[in-house]
Amino acid sequence: MTSTSTLRVAMIGTGFMGAAHSQAFRVAPRFFDLPLAPEMTVIVGRDAAKTQAAAEKLGWAEASTDWRAVIARDDIDLVDICSPGDSHAEIAIAALEAGKHVLCEKPLANTVEEARAMADAARAAAARGIRSMVGFSYRRVPALTLARDLVQAGRIGEVRQARAAYLQDWLVDENGPMTWRLDKKLAGSGSLGDIGAHAVDSVQFITGQTVEQVSGHLRTFVTERPLLGEGVGLSGTASDERGIVTVDDAAWFTGQLSGGAVASFEATRYATGRKNGLKIEIFGSRGAIVFDLERMNELEFYDGTDAAGEQGFRRIFVTEPEHPYAVWWPTGHGLGYEHPFSHQLRDLVFDIAEGRAPSPSFDDGLQVQQVLDAVERSAAANAVWTPVS
Amino acid sequence: MTSTSTLRVAMIGTGFMGAAHSQAFRVAPRFFDLPLAPEMTVIVGRDAAKTQAAAEKLGWAEASTDWRAVIARDDIDLVDICSPGDSHAEIAIAALEAGKHVLCEKPLANTVEEARAMADAARAAAARGIRSMVGFSYRRVPALTLARDLVQAGRIGEVRQARAAYLQDWLVDENGPMTWRLDKKLAGSGSLGDIGAHAVDSVQFITGQTVEQVSGHLRTFVTERPLLGEGVGLSGTASDERGIVTVDDAAWFTGQLSGGAVASFEATRYATGRKNGLKIEIFGSRGAIVFDLERMNELEFYDGTDAAGEQGFRRIFVTEPEHPYAVWWPTGHGLGYEHPFSHQLRDLVFDIAEGRAPSPSFDDGLQVQQVLDAVERSAAANAVWTPVS
Amino acid sequence: MTSTSTLRVAMIGTGFMGAAHSQAFRVAPRFFDLPLAPEMTVIVGRDAAKTQAAAEKLGWAEASTDWRAVIARDDIDLVDICSPGDSHAEIAIAALEAGKHVLCEKPLANTVEEARAMADAARAAAARGIRSMVGFSYRRVPALTLARDLVQAGRIGEVRQARAAYLQDWLVDENGPMTWRLDKKLAGSGSLGDIGAHAVDSVQFITGQTVEQVSGHLRTFVTERPLLGEGVGLSGTASDERGIVTVDDAAWFTGQLSGGAVASFEATRYATGRKNGLKIEIFGSRGAIVFDLERMNELEFYDGTDAAGEQGFRRIFVTEPEHPYAVWWPTGHGLGYEHPFSHQLRDLVFDIAEGRAPSPSFDDGLQVQQVLDAVERSAAANAVWTPVS
Amino acid sequence: MTSTSTLRVAMIGTGFMGAAHSQAFRVAPRFFDLPLAPEMTVIVGRDAAKTQAAAEKLGWAEASTDWRAVIARDDIDLVDICSPGDSHAEIAIAALEAGKHVLCEKPLANTVEEARAMADAARAAAARGIRSMVGFSYRRVPALTLARDLVQAGRIGEVRQARAAYLQDWLVDENGPMTWRLDKKLAGSGSLGDIGAHAVDSVQFITGQTVEQVSGHLRTFVTERPLLGEGVGLSGTASDERGIVTVDDAAWFTGQLSGGAVASFEATRYATGRKNGLKIEIFGSRGAIVFDLERMNELEFYDGTDAAGEQGFRRIFVTEPEHPYAVWWPTGHGLGYEHPFSHQLRDLVFDIAEGRAPSPSFDDGLQVQQVLDAVERSAAANAVWTPVS
Repeated sequence: MTSTSTLRVAMIGTGFMGAAHSQAFRVAPRFFDLPLAPEMTVIVGRDAAKTQAAAEKLGWAEASTDWRAVIARDDIDLVDICSPGDSHAEIAIAALEAGKHVLCEKPLANTVEEARAMADAARAAAARGIRSMVGFSYRRVPALTLARDLVQAGRIGEVRQARAAYLQDWLVDENGPMTWRLDKKLAGSGSLGDIGAHAVDSVQFITGQTVEQVSGHLRTFVTERPLLGEGVGLSGTASDERGIVTVDDAAWFTGQLSGGAVASFEATRYATGRKNGLKIEIFGSRGAIVFDLERMNELEFYDGTDAAGEQGFRRIFVTEPEHPYAVWWPTGHGLGYEHPFSHQLRDLVFDIAEGRAPSPSFDDGLQVQQVLDAVERSAAANAVWTPVS
Repeated sequence: MTSTSTLRVAMIGTGFMGAAHSQAFRVAPRFFDLPLAPEMTVIVGRDAAKTQAAAEKLGWAEASTDWRAVIARDDIDLVDICSPGDSHAEIAIAALEAGKHVLCEKPLANTVEEARAMADAARAAAARGIRSMVGFSYRRVPALTLARDLVQAGRIGEVRQARAAYLQDWLVDENGPMTWRLDKKLAGSGSLGDIGAHAVDSVQFITGQTVEQVSGHLRTFVTERPLLGEGVGLSGTASDERGIVTVDDAAWFTGQLSGGAVASFEATRYATGRKNGLKIEIFGSRGAIVFDLERMNELEFYDGTDAAGEQGFRRIFVTEPEHPYAVWWPTGHGLGYEHPFSHQLRDLVFDIAEGRAPSPSFDDGLQVQQVLDAVERSAAANAVWTPVS
Repeated sequence: MTSTSTLRVAMIGTGFMGAAHSQAFRVAPRFFDLPLAPEMTVIVGRDAAKTQAAAEKLGWAEASTDWRAVIARDDIDLVDICSPGDSHAEIAIAALEAGKHVLCEKPLANTVEEARAMADAARAAAARGIRSMVGFSYRRVPALTLARDLVQAGRIGEVRQARAAYLQDWLVDENGPMTWRLDKKLAGSGSLGDIGAHAVDSVQFITGQTVEQVSGHLRTFVTERPLLGEGVGLSGTASDERGIVTVDDAAWFTGQLSGGAVASFEATRYATGRKNGLKIEIFGSRGAIVFDLERMNELEFYDGTDAAGEQGFRRIFVTEPEHPYAVWWPTGHGLGYEHPFSHQLRDLVFDIAEGRAPSPSFDDGLQVQQVLDAVERSAAANAVWTPVS
Repeated sequence: MTSTSTLRVAMIGTGFMGAAHSQAFRVAPRFFDLPLAPEMTVIVGRDAAKTQAAAEKLGWAEASTDWRAVIARDDIDLVDICSPGDSHAEIAIAALEAGKHVLCEKPLANTVEEARAMADAARAAAARGIRSMVGFSYRRVPALTLARDLVQAGRIGEVRQARAAYLQDWLVDENGPMTWRLDKKLAGSGSLGDIGAHAVDSVQFITGQTVEQVSGHLRTFVTERPLLGEGVGLSGTASDERGIVTVDDAAWFTGQLSGGAVASFEATRYATGRKNGLKIEIFGSRGAIVFDLERMNELEFYDGTDAAGEQGFRRIFVTEPEHPYAVWWPTGHGLGYEHPFSHQLRDLVFDIAEGRAPSPSFDDGLQVQQVLDAVERSAAANAVWTPVS
């Protein structure tokens, strides 16, 4: 498809993820030797003026409000979907059918049905050499990649238990206003899909096991919140009306994993004081791994084969030349939130250039969606064990 | 009962807890001004020679192998039960009926039925001025007492979520031998009752809420272990035979609390690298509390009413004069595992002298037992929500 | 000078700092609304082929090996000096005299004499509206800026003691080869100027006090190291010859500060296990501040006016909207090593556009150089107290 | 001397150290199998009533106000000196001459002259089988003993740098009253002797190297403080008069060690927020050790021979059976401030019973005193390098 060595990109979405992905397109080629040169061709949004402003701010050559037209263009090789979850399926399937590689933000979709259709489309496209990847970017936090490497190399032995919690606190104030993220029609679910999805993917990625059964519970602590007033942009007055929160505020679930391990999960936006606390602990028969996204450059590793009396959790500062994605700065100079997006892009570009199936695939995204769906079904059925399917 | 100012004690049990409690009887009167002076009158065990040795080592005036005879003595005021859980009910009830005050180690009993009988006996005895307490000693770790004080004073607002995990790793080696603790007949349960009980009691103590419903899961990772060979004491040879582990190795459960909060619990002896990790996080509408028994002199407190931009978890080093039980050493000089037993004894002695009902009561111990029982029932019923009753 | 709204940049140097500064020019305009748009016009190096490759990799429009010719060009507004320290004075003075704004990496120069000439030139240029800044980028780590803000607002009261250590370990292996950084002629000094300079600047920046007298000690632990063999790039053989290390491996000094505080400093490349450990503690009459560059998104703040019994070091996760330079990502999403270079650039561009004197100035750079010089003189004089002048 | 298997003890002093040592006499025999049984025979103080109260509270059989008479008694085997430093020399020398073993709290004396006389007396007594030990109890914190063991076993290679700071904050309030500890006549020195002595001893103990030269600085931040009013015990009124602080508030010094290492030291009572922060870092050619007394059950160990990419500081929880003095409780159950006094007593009792020279000896105490003295002389001589002699 790319007769030259460029990879011409259309980005769908202009928000937080759009900015994060733009940074990757801008930066990754300056640090990695990529086999294809990404070109920031066009960015797509709903509002013409805002999208034009985003194009200028983020560095895209063109702006558009018509994603269908963009997908139809010959000069686009990769479609990067950063729009809200309810739009993923339609765009991704259309893009794949149009012969474009697709990078799609997580969660893959808002429902299993949509996700399944997307995975079907991705498999069909793959047969034609079209690549697709779902954006679980935390897999490419070097410390988390290193965790996977250590576990897969057997350094902690047989995995028995995993503990994963994603703790945030931005809903603690019960007078904070409604947003689309609290509306089930738009967001699909609340903490479960937004951050719980990361917890599930991370545990599965590190352990190499998949969640097969779940028992779960969902809770909405604050069921009504003030609506934003009409014309906020002008008058700034807040509405007296209140809206109904239709998603979960927090989710708890236990999972039985394919390799025999048990994992506990917790996702919440009410963990006062925790800002971005994706905390993962993996306990094996010979060692353990501990990770906290709030200290993303560190990995704790307990090696149970160290001499007796000398065992302890090692704080590995994951900035050494031996560590994954170590192209940035000398030892000891840490990375930030945004860098895993560059790592993700790097791997995707190589996969496209070399004709490999990217990971995580849409099938992987579907499987996570199925786990989330099983949690919702279990929660609705009195927490009973529910198979992931 | 105590015509003089002494409190004459009979201790039942000579093991780990016997040693810990002995240290409290020995030490507490040297640091606290107690209204009654404990006398270490007699220690009771099964084996005459071993019990005599324990008496000398631990500093008890007499040794006995007949707890019934000891309880019948006029010169005993307090019976301190440190024997295995399956013996608690019989001894405690007999002692209370004989008019002795009773301190009973946790868990109160191995079954709800036993615990209920004990609580009934304690209530009946209380009407006659006889006092009883169950030994959830961690309540008297100063940092944990401070956590309770802060939460009860409203410093974290309305409690919404609690996370409690008790992580140990002494069963990680699958070739480690069977012990009585892995035999359901003797131990009642595994991690659930042994350490999960502490997690439940701690969360209830700090929040002031009780667990009303649970959804739980139990797992035994290693189902067979080598038996200790015959005559190990002489030949040192290990047995080729293997025994069956009949208790849980790990337990996970979610609880709905009386005040509307949700708590997650996890107890395991397979958390490689965690030695005594009772980790508790309490999230409220205005703040949060974090505690880890491996750093028992510290409490983390997040005050959501601090100025914006200056909020953060404070590491309070709980050794100040303002802190609970601050009689030991100057500021900055930490306590160890054993000190909460002295705090517990101090409070019990004051309660006895001043005619107050000690806390935690046998009813509190029964309630914890009911929570554990509900977890077992839920786990047996496919994790379905199960009322605590 | 900039008749349009662009700021046309020439960068001198293609190494580590060249890459870091290039990232700032590339990224800062995408996150900050700058009054002038930087243009990456030309990069200057010694070797034509390497410089051309650097231009392509780092994104500069042109490459040159003639810095004098570049400085003479009309289409250059800002000269960014990232070359080794022994070249700073000549280039900076020439650029300022040519009417170019100058950003110069730290240390300002290798000697006080050079630094003084540069500061003189900067003052003279300032009278003509030409701006200059020395690149102590750590001042713009948000946590460190916040530390300064808190201290300057009086939140820790009167500063009494500062402790600053910059601990690295990349010279621990005594068979590691000689580099130009270990040659006094090229590098000026060793740990003292390379990383000790950051410690001095940080303490002065946060406290607002300057070091007035020092007592210091320097030590070279490994005095000979293997030279790199001839033709390493081809044959990979190492040389049997050894070179002499002529700079300090580590430096210790105590400083008396202008406001009455005392500061201790330590800089070393032999602190095994410490990768980039710039650790700063500031103790005042009402509070304290603790910072560690290895956890650059965190600041610890002890508020001595908190209620008795509730005092403790707060871990502030410096990613809130209230925090300095908070334009990047939502709360809880940390920054990396490179971001302070963007903050520095942002401030410089505003200073240029609005006609303000940038900070830190060349005078500030000179003053740090004088401190380092006084340390060397004290160390040569048996550690005697030596005035900074 | 002890014809029976008892060790009859006279304690001189009834304050903080008296209470700490009493706890050791009370507790150590219950956990260690000692070859001699300590008997708490008599406690000596200045005030008859207070000493009698202390005897009852702390558990001594008798009280006395005449230390000379006590030393003359035949039924005393060991004299434990816990009185202020200005009394150590006279008592210790008299006791040794009377044929009593002596345990003397640190610092050994207030002056080098006194310490030298004591060391001479100890050597003379040793020839007659009389044992003496100076109470640097922190050597027996298990984590610190383990640090010594690891370093002496070569696990961190050749020691190059040590960093030791003892940070407290109890003088931060400038309106806090005068105490005898701020009066040079009584206390000898301030932070230097009180806590700096621990830092010096700890570094020398762990590294096995002695400080040979020092360059130091002393500072008194608050030179006047309110005197306590007359009759405070009755009237509670505070005095309007102010007293002069004649000791150092803080001390900084650099030491050259006998094995070629360099150590930095800092001792202060003005480190706001630090309660008992004895922080020690030892960097060697193959690894490093980090210890903090505020987390006394932990030792951090960096093993530079771990595989590349897996290196990191290990947090060893020093409660394993393999660890020093591991008789107390099972793995994971931490010790407190007081336990090292029991360890010290245990070792002393074995030394007495088995005829070995205890460590640290009075010569060791003298050497520390000489280091402190050299710091004072260097500080008075403009920080010039000053030999320890």
